[in-house]
Amino acid sequence: MIYLDHAASTSINSKAYDVLINFLREDFANPQAAHLPGRNLQKKIEDCRKYFLSTLKADKGLCIFTSSATESNNMVISGWEGKSRENFFYSPSDHPSITIPCEKKKDLMAKKIPLSSGDIKTNALLDSIDDKTRLVILTHINSVNGKINPVFEIAKLIKEKNSSIWIHLDAVQSYGKYPVCTEHMDSVSISSHKIGGPKGIAGLYMKSHPPFNPLLWGGGQEKGWRASTPATSLIFSFTEACRQIFKNMQKNKDHVQKLNEFTKNQLERIPKIRFPFNDTSSYILSFILPGISSDILLRQLEQKNIFLSSTSACSSRIKGKNPVLSALGLEEALHKFVLRISFSPQNTQEEIKIFSEELKKLYEQNYKIFKKK
Amino acid sequence: MIYLDHAASTSINSKAYDVLINFLREDFANPQAAHLPGRNLQKKIEDCRKYFLSTLKADKGLCIFTSSATESNNMVISGWEGKSRENFFYSPSDHPSITIPCEKKKDLMAKKIPLSSGDIKTNALLDSIDDKTRLVILTHINSVNGKINPVFEIAKLIKEKNSSIWIHLDAVQSYGKYPVCTEHMDSVSISSHKIGGPKGIAGLYMKSHPPFNPLLWGGGQEKGWRASTPATSLIFSFTEACRQIFKNMQKNKDHVQKLNEFTKNQLERIPKIRFPFNDTSSYILSFILPGISSDILLRQLEQKNIFLSSTSACSSRIKGKNPVLSALGLEEALHKFVLRISFSPQNTQEEIKIFSEELKKLYEQNYKIFKKK
Repeated sequence: MIYLDHAASTSINSKAYDVLINFLREDFANPQAAHLPGRNLQKKIEDCRKYFLSTLKADKGLCIFTSSATESNNMVISGWEGKSRENFFYSPSDHPSITIPCEKKKDLMAKKIPLSSGDIKTNALLDSIDDKTRLVILTHINSVNGKINPVFEIAKLIKEKNSSIWIHLDAVQSYGKYPVCTEHMDSVSISSHKIGGPKGIAGLYMKSHPPFNPLLWGGGQEKGWRASTPATSLIFSFTEACRQIFKNMQKNKDHVQKLNEFTKNQLERIPKIRFPFNDTSSYILSFILPGISSDILLRQLEQKNIFLSSTSACSSRIKGKNPVLSALGLEEALHKFVLRISFSPQNTQEEIKIFSEELKKLYEQNYKIFKKK
Repeated sequence: MIYLDHAASTSINSKAYDVLINFLREDFANPQAAHLPGRNLQKKIEDCRKYFLSTLKADKGLCIFTSSATESNNMVISGWEGKSRENFFYSPSDHPSITIPCEKKKDLMAKKIPLSSGDIKTNALLDSIDDKTRLVILTHINSVNGKINPVFEIAKLIKEKNSSIWIHLDAVQSYGKYPVCTEHMDSVSISSHKIGGPKGIAGLYMKSHPPFNPLLWGGGQEKGWRASTPATSLIFSFTEACRQIFKNMQKNKDHVQKLNEFTKNQLERIPKIRFPFNDTSSYILSFILPGISSDILLRQLEQKNIFLSSTSACSSRIKGKNPVLSALGLEEALHKFVLRISFSPQNTQEEIKIFSEELKKLYEQNYKIFKKK
């Protein structure tokens, strides 16, 4: 099997796996309980929180554990409900866990950040924000095309104009892969299952005294910010996955960058191929094979045990026009021809050779049939 | 170690553990992805949904997987936001994941169900509900004192008065232990880590066309009802835990009932002990040892490697007056003397003998010191 969809979800790191299966045996108590086993769990959770703060180079603030980056993003957005919530800014190229609440929750009054081919038009954004602006959401690395946004520079300029604006960073596709810090950022979403941790756990960094409400109300866990029995084993495993990915960040990045270039070289042997996106993460490579629907190619690759995707998993059920691809500046007629590869440091050049040859063959076969018609 | 706090959280069932650790190795894909590994995961999730429906004897409706019963309860309560939300009814003896949002979210307009010593005053409730009533929340088994509420009879009467009222059942302490069905119920919350599944996963049964919104917005997972990458391994492990507990429900109940009676007999050797609650689940035994604060006894028992609690874990940080105990009809002066044992089918009479003797000894020692002062 050749799996090239790691931006959607990746396999668990072996050390994170060991932590999970070993700890799970003794994970009987409730960390909210007042007794010793409960208190011991709570202490371990606090250590994890501190570790996560250190990975974000944050000396203040709080890391809470949520069930998913979707929950982390939703918490920051929906948490303003019942409070004043004028002027939220988000990009239409953001992940659906940002765009959908911003577009469907009518009382949010969210506004779109002006984009040009997916790039944030910083000056236009700065012109749009004013005293009423409460929240600006920025995505570090786009999940569909891998575009790296200059979020720290943009955040600095926003803060210079109005320092009371809360800036939220979606760092799901960058955390553990590229440096992420909390400078000029008020909250940051991160995810476990994109970096070798288990599914069902994620994080949210927040500066002190967030102006929004919690999403989950109840037993006051996570310093009052997220009611629910903490998923201890998952938290500890997620933490171990982070330790592993941070230890190997540079090595991984070098390997994936080479692999990305190698892939591009291999794929350029398909004459009609186009790589429409610039300034992208090495971990994501999106391209266009005009004339043959990506659905067809994905199904045929699947027969060869090769798995990639056309867009983010969370948008995979969208048919026809893809709003994220539109926001990224891609004309609608091309949407159905987009394919996305996303790498893990475990992928090899051998895999890429097999994949590229199969794709070339399939594309040419389809193209011949298509031209005959 | 003698652990008697299983209502707060219990250890993972060995078969559920096996499912989790075996599946986790191959749990690399995103079930929302369009490719075969994604589709296979989605298919398995659908099978789990069907299984859960069968455990609730529901032939219609939908089971979705959430991250906690707190999330399930919050979803039903907070989901009315932005819609009309007049007249919600809840009991002040409910779990904090119900009482806190009902009491703190100002725009919910929640009303208290009239109680008498923790019993729902059915006639008074029926008198209070009218055409404007939207939601009635019922708890099957109270997590603090184990009180079994006649929820199916009450729900039937509510529906007879106004069939359009949505009735939500919190079945966290009953599911897998006592029969729970969806008759007259529109939604039901269940939890994994109370019945031998892993932490971080739970469920919500809903009849078709719920009148509320999802809590998490984004990629449209869980039939549009809960955005987030599904935590596949956790879902499969939770399902296995259910299979195990449902297979052994009667055997477990018989064992725990005997154990409960045995415990009561043993504890009655402490002359001043009081068992103030009736009609309770065999799985929970709350009692009062007057004069000695439960905090002191719990700490001393802890030294002997014996762990129980004074109330639910989610209320364990509440000092002084406990609003749930008040709602259960216990005078405030007694709150600090309450202890709660909660059993698992793995607890033995041997453990109870040791525990009872230690408790008797500690109580008498403390009482002597206390009287001398």
